[in-house]
Amino acid sequence: MSAASIRVPRQERSRATQARLLEATVECLVEHGWAGTTTTLVAARAGVSRGAQLHHYPTKAALVTAAVGHLAERRAAELRAEAAALPIGPQRLDRVIDLLEVAFTGPLFVAALELWVAARTDPELRRALIPLEARVGREMHRLTVALLDVDERRQGVRETVQATLDLLRGLGVANLLTDDSVRRAALLNTWKRRLATLLTP
Amino acid sequence: MSAASIRVPRQERSRATQARLLEATVECLVEHGWAGTTTTLVAARAGVSRGAQLHHYPTKAALVTAAVGHLAERRAAELRAEAAALPIGPQRLDRVIDLLEVAFTGPLFVAALELWVAARTDPELRRALIPLEARVGREMHRLTVALLDVDERRQGVRETVQATLDLLRGLGVANLLTDDSVRRAALLNTWKRRLATLLTP
Repeated sequence: MSAASIRVPRQERSRATQARLLEATVECLVEHGWAGTTTTLVAARAGVSRGAQLHHYPTKAALVTAAVGHLAERRAAELRAEAAALPIGPQRLDRVIDLLEVAFTGPLFVAALELWVAARTDPELRRALIPLEARVGREMHRLTVALLDVDERRQGVRETVQATLDLLRGLGVANLLTDDSVRRAALLNTWKRRLATLLTP
Repeated sequence: MSAASIRVPRQERSRATQARLLEATVECLVEHGWAGTTTTLVAARAGVSRGAQLHHYPTKAALVTAAVGHLAERRAAELRAEAAALPIGPQRLDRVIDLLEVAFTGPLFVAALELWVAARTDPELRRALIPLEARVGREMHRLTVALLDVDERRQGVRETVQATLDLLRGLGVANLLTDDSVRRAALLNTWKRRLATLLTP
């Protein structure tokens, strides 16, 4: 075998190891919270040796930040693909809000919230997380504008998109301890009707 | 001294001790987070003996739940008093939203959020917190309806009040790691104009 053919599989193995570690990190955060998540636990769950884990992500802060960043990108790509499959027409806006609702009540939101709250009182995590939060926030806003297919130059559109995302974040927190889906569905139905009026030229 | 005159000061001392413990608990949650808050630390901060602390609140879950419940009631009373001092007229709605914005970015919100997130993965805290969350949520809704002086029987008013509180919760979370006040002010200005249309008969 040539050097190149050995190198490629090794890079692929490396990427697969990283992906398993990042998936296992989010699962651990969802199941055990920030305090209960350890790099040892994550390595065991991912079926990755402690040495390999330390090689890829030397600290807990590096591991959890990479996990939330990586999975936010993957989730954004999935949202784009799901939205591309939606029919054009008046029902589209409602279905986009449904997709976002799922994102803001799912495991990635829960894992991210564990980190935002822990970072408040953990300087190392905070330093790692602030740029990630800004990037994910910007990308989520851009993605929502694209999915809704609205023009941000129109007056009030930017604030309406922002309010939708802030509202969904608030609803995600309200869903942490109990199933809030009935109240949320009624509220979001009203919200969809308002959005149709506010966002349609 | 009669038995009654001895009993009253003792009850007062007891209430003062409790109040100091509950204040110190919220301060500890804000400063050190859920994981960094211990009953020993709270007792020391409150200047209360460990024995007295254990007498009033035997567990960490009992202490933090009492603290958030007690301070939510006190804060609601303060909000009512502040709102009572507001002038009647078109500016009133804006000032009520300003008061709520302060509540959802202040120390009590941060302390409560620490508990909601920790309770997700802590069964004892979760059991204690679920009824408190329901009660505080209901009271916050009722208080907001009263402060805004709106009629919930009108169509859409209930959902609009709920959306306002969920939006403020989302904005509170967005303010955890960085100062989000500039973005929030612009967003809430748009929101106030919408509310004036939606809530006025």
